[in-house]
Amino acid sequence: RYGEIDREDQIGVVTGLAWTSVGGDILTIEAVKMPGKGKMTPTGNLKDVMKESVSAASSYVKSRAVEFGIEPPVFEKTDIHIHVPEGATPKDGPSAGVAMATAIVSVLTGVPVHKDIAMTGEISLRGRVLAIGGLKEKLLAALRAGVKTVLIPEENEKDLADIPDNVKEDLKIIPVSTVDEVLAHALTQKLTPIEWSEPVEPAPTGETGGDSASVVTH
Amino acid sequence: RYGEIDREDQIGVVTGLAWTSVGGDILTIEAVKMPGKGKMTPTGNLKDVMKESVSAASSYVKSRAVEFGIEPPVFEKTDIHIHVPEGATPKDGPSAGVAMATAIVSVLTGVPVHKDIAMTGEISLRGRVLAIGGLKEKLLAALRAGVKTVLIPEENEKDLADIPDNVKEDLKIIPVSTVDEVLAHALTQKLTPIEWSEPVEPAPTGETGGDSASVVTH
Amino acid sequence: RYGEIDREDQIGVVTGLAWTSVGGDILTIEAVKMPGKGKMTPTGNLKDVMKESVSAASSYVKSRAVEFGIEPPVFEKTDIHIHVPEGATPKDGPSAGVAMATAIVSVLTGVPVHKDIAMTGEISLRGRVLAIGGLKEKLLAALRAGVKTVLIPEENEKDLADIPDNVKEDLKIIPVSTVDEVLAHALTQKLTPIEWSEPVEPAPTGETGGDSASVVTH
Amino acid sequence: RYGEIDREDQIGVVTGLAWTSVGGDILTIEAVKMPGKGKMTPTGNLKDVMKESVSAASSYVKSRAVEFGIEPPVFEKTDIHIHVPEGATPKDGPSAGVAMATAIVSVLTGVPVHKDIAMTGEISLRGRVLAIGGLKEKLLAALRAGVKTVLIPEENEKDLADIPDNVKEDLKIIPVSTVDEVLAHALTQKLTPIEWSEPVEPAPTGETGGDSASVVTH
Amino acid sequence: RYGEIDREDQIGVVTGLAWTSVGGDILTIEAVKMPGKGKMTPTGNLKDVMKESVSAASSYVKSRAVEFGIEPPVFEKTDIHIHVPEGATPKDGPSAGVAMATAIVSVLTGVPVHKDIAMTGEISLRGRVLAIGGLKEKLLAALRAGVKTVLIPEENEKDLADIPDNVKEDLKIIPVSTVDEVLAHALTQKLTPIEWSEPVEPAPTGETGGDSASVVTH
Amino acid sequence: RYGEIDREDQIGVVTGLAWTSVGGDILTIEAVKMPGKGKMTPTGNLKDVMKESVSAASSYVKSRAVEFGIEPPVFEKTDIHIHVPEGATPKDGPSAGVAMATAIVSVLTGVPVHKDIAMTGEISLRGRVLAIGGLKEKLLAALRAGVKTVLIPEENEKDLADIPDNVKEDLKIIPVSTVDEVLAHALTQKLTPIEWSEPVEPAPTGETGGDSASVVTH
Ligand SMILES: [Ca+2]
Ligand SMILES: [Ca+2]
Ligand SMILES: [Ca+2]
Ligand SMILES: [Ca+2]
Ligand SMILES: [Ca+2]
Ligand SMILES: [Ca+2]
Ligand SMILES: [Ca+2]
Ligand SMILES: [Ca+2]
Ligand SMILES: [Ca+2]
Ligand SMILES: [Ca+2]
Ligand SMILES: [Ca+2]
Ligand SMILES: [Ca+2]
Repeated sequence: RYGEIDREDQIGVVTGLAWTSVGGDILTIEAVKMPGKGKMTPTGNLKDVMKESVSAASSYVKSRAVEFGIEPPVFEKTDIHIHVPEGATPKDGPSAGVAMATAIVSVLTGVPVHKDIAMTGEISLRGRVLAIGGLKEKLLAALRAGVKTVLIPEENEKDLADIPDNVKEDLKIIPVSTVDEVLAHALTQKLTPIEWSEPVEPAPTGETGGDSASVVTH
Repeated sequence: RYGEIDREDQIGVVTGLAWTSVGGDILTIEAVKMPGKGKMTPTGNLKDVMKESVSAASSYVKSRAVEFGIEPPVFEKTDIHIHVPEGATPKDGPSAGVAMATAIVSVLTGVPVHKDIAMTGEISLRGRVLAIGGLKEKLLAALRAGVKTVLIPEENEKDLADIPDNVKEDLKIIPVSTVDEVLAHALTQKLTPIEWSEPVEPAPTGETGGDSASVVTH
Repeated sequence: RYGEIDREDQIGVVTGLAWTSVGGDILTIEAVKMPGKGKMTPTGNLKDVMKESVSAASSYVKSRAVEFGIEPPVFEKTDIHIHVPEGATPKDGPSAGVAMATAIVSVLTGVPVHKDIAMTGEISLRGRVLAIGGLKEKLLAALRAGVKTVLIPEENEKDLADIPDNVKEDLKIIPVSTVDEVLAHALTQKLTPIEWSEPVEPAPTGETGGDSASVVTH
Repeated sequence: RYGEIDREDQIGVVTGLAWTSVGGDILTIEAVKMPGKGKMTPTGNLKDVMKESVSAASSYVKSRAVEFGIEPPVFEKTDIHIHVPEGATPKDGPSAGVAMATAIVSVLTGVPVHKDIAMTGEISLRGRVLAIGGLKEKLLAALRAGVKTVLIPEENEKDLADIPDNVKEDLKIIPVSTVDEVLAHALTQKLTPIEWSEPVEPAPTGETGGDSASVVTH
Repeated sequence: RYGEIDREDQIGVVTGLAWTSVGGDILTIEAVKMPGKGKMTPTGNLKDVMKESVSAASSYVKSRAVEFGIEPPVFEKTDIHIHVPEGATPKDGPSAGVAMATAIVSVLTGVPVHKDIAMTGEISLRGRVLAIGGLKEKLLAALRAGVKTVLIPEENEKDLADIPDNVKEDLKIIPVSTVDEVLAHALTQKLTPIEWSEPVEPAPTGETGGDSASVVTH
Repeated sequence: RYGEIDREDQIGVVTGLAWTSVGGDILTIEAVKMPGKGKMTPTGNLKDVMKESVSAASSYVKSRAVEFGIEPPVFEKTDIHIHVPEGATPKDGPSAGVAMATAIVSVLTGVPVHKDIAMTGEISLRGRVLAIGGLKEKLLAALRAGVKTVLIPEENEKDLADIPDNVKEDLKIIPVSTVDEVLAHALTQKLTPIEWSEPVEPAPTGETGGDSASVVTH
């Protein structure tokens, strides 16, 4: 039932948290991959700032791929679609960034996401988790939806003082400052980095090199 | 005659249901395929949210292709056009999502759709059928058009209490929660999954691999 | 003279009918083909709905090509331009759809269109001819322009009751329900379907297949 | 001096005629070609209808290339730029269509345009010259600029009754109904058609043909 | 210091002149080239008419390349970026056209531009220098900035009557009517034309020619 | 913590300075590189002028690559993403140009940026550092954020008279006029230029050269 979390750990499905003028809500982020050419398709009535979140999350994952155990050539032959139901509702803001990154890593590694965890946090290209607004409304929405654990930005830890005690008792609230911490909490398995040396190119020919090309540092 | 359902089961033609300020209406979704390069063309005065439905339906089908019996390379060499007459009327909203998915699966598998079935439901990338609005108006429109069976989201089952008895007597109303259920009811034949192993690539050369490339998990 | 029909049967030139606040008018649809890559260029101050008509007509013709005697590879190496003079006048609406399809089939098969026929009807991707508005104004415009025969949607047959007798005496009005009927009336020669088997691909290599690829239905 | 016609016959330069709320003016159309890939670049503050004129003129020339002595492959390896000074003044309307076509034919064949001729007329894809507005203002502007001969649409011949006698005495006014007539008057040399048989393709391989492909008319 | 001219002759840097409601100003046009595919990037808050100037200047240079000593294939493997600081100020109008052309020729030939020269003039695709507005304000701005020589359109020579004597004494004002004259004055070296015969293509194969293709003039 | 500078020198991360109606702020610019095709993606709610800054910075770095020790082919096989948190805040203006250039050079060379330096200045394509606004507010913001050294445009040196003494005592303020100076101060290592001779192309064949092609300067 939409508005509640899933009944099993799933690949590419992450619970984010939204904050609107009428309160908080959960936001299901769904990612699927397909054979393709590296296209990223964000849908679900996402406005510009949220679309940029998807873009930043995607570049972050790409630039750190080997540490997550993803072989870089995968990006050239895979299309990813990220969708956020419910399509009739416009969605904006940067605070779903870490959830977007988690969905992308999950779908590319095939590692499921814990079903009872939710998260909020703007993503930085360096993998920092940045402060968000509406913490209280988001935590209440998480509770209503049956979430057990919520990852929040460390920069928002100070706002926990304003959160009702019962919410803090019923939810495990974990402040995080990096996407690495987010993934460690959210994924059901530890990621295994790979080593990846770019292949040595064959002796260049024609336009792109040859004996006649010289590269000299001095 | 437009406004009534078809006289025979057809490939790529699905009856959806629309809800506007002046009542409900049926919405014929037509899909055709052509030799091409993987382009999806949605027409019929579709606004952004309905276009995103087409995109989500398309990615859902692509990401689940083998389970529907569709060989993945088909997507690279086929263009699909989805059209919703009547072109003068603007159409929006996510509730035709499952009908879009059904039309795409039908046209790609060549399996016809039952002519006397209609359906409404937002599609999720995971294949969930999500709640819609205007159930009553939509069911009345289905009845007027000669529909026998209507697939509705399980999340809308609770709204059946408000539906007049005669409607519930004259229509077979089936609540569904997944696109798999939708396809099982709507298509005239059971789909046969295929097994598909991505071909082993030949010994890589040059830029994309070679002895000099090493991929080591540790 | 523009505003009157042509003096000879021509390839790619079809007389459509328009209906505006100030009455009806004929609408000349011109199609030419050029060596190219499959691009379709619609011009003549066409607004979105009429542009979508061109798109739907094009996909319809593509998806039914062999029945019209058109070899599918033609589409990849041909550009088509559809123009509707007079360029200063904005044009919209779906009712030129069947005329667009007729122009495309004519230009691709090289079969001329009868000079004294006009037509109106929205096209469906399945090749249905759907109802239009302004029948009376359109028929009067056809008469003024020297048209002898007008194809109208079968769904509009009921509106003939409101048409003045003299119009019905001076024009041969033919209700049609499919594009096949339209083509049979409008083209000066019968189309000859071809058989087209997609070439068997050579033994696949590398990325796109090979012994290592297996496709098994079960 | 801009606002006057050129002192010598030039390749790719044609004098058109514009009509605005403040009277008529000449409009210099300049075309140049460059090695390229078939791109057409229209500049000079041209609004949509005039840009579509360029597009229609271009397709007309392409579809009739061999009759003008232009080898079709030229289009794939040539870019054309059409510019209308003065860039600060917005320009619109379809009446420069035949001038656009003349400029394109001139630049592609290398045949200069008579320096003392001006022209006005909407172009049709079939090569018809269609009626324009503001004939009087345009003729006066031509006279002021030193033009000797003006090509006008045959459909506008009736409007000559309203033109002052001195204008009709000082200008040679030639009504034309086809682009072929326009070119015959405007270019300084007769065009020589070529014969062009599309090369016989080599024995097809793989995807695009082969023994296994069969095309049978029946 | 911005607002003054440079201290040395530079490649790809040209001083243009702008005219706004608050007076004249100099406009530094900077061009750089990079390995690329023929892309032209105009930046600096340039509005449409000024962007079209860049486009016209670029096509002019391309179409006349060999006369400037530029080998045509250079255009396919070079990207050019044209920037006009200061980025916060919107800039429009066609009068920087000849300065754009000069910057492009300078950067592609490697010939520097005289540091103490400024220029104003709309460019025509044929290489004409067309009239501009605000001559007085532009000349005053040139003087303030330390410019010694100003190239102006011959069509504006008549406006020199309104220019204060001291300005005409302190600036060398050169009326020009062609881009060739502009380059002769602005560049620090004379350009050397090259001869360039398009390579004879190898015996054509398949689709693009061969013995089976015939081109016959008649 | 966002709003403060980083705790360690990082690759691709630069501290810029922003000036808004409510005062100054630091602006973290983050750049990452990924295997790709030369695409530049700017995000972070950047408006047009700031996006053009990224474009100018990118072209500047590309056109000067070898002096920074970057092999030109790197640009063809690398995508760069530049992001400026916080995504909910729109950002505009040209004054982050030199920071953008520094981030790009850092990420492409792998040389980290000093963590306690901030910078403001519009970039010119020639590598000049141009004047900015809001110097006082920017310096105060730098101080608040823990910055030790601030690079400002030499053209703004005159504005230092208005800066409170304590700010000038607590911050090392360095006026700079070129991007080379900026890089010398900001990067933790000196860049090593490389020599790069474009490879001699192999004997050309077919379309792009051959014995039959002749290039003669005269
Ligand atoms: Ca909800
Ligand atoms: Ca937010
Ligand atoms: Ca209806
Ligand atoms: Ca809906
Ligand atoms: Ca008319
Ligand atoms: Ca209509
Ligand atoms: Ca004028
Ligand atoms: Ca006009
Ligand atoms: Ca200034
Ligand atoms: Ca101007
Ligand atoms: Ca801040
Ligand atoms: Ca600024």
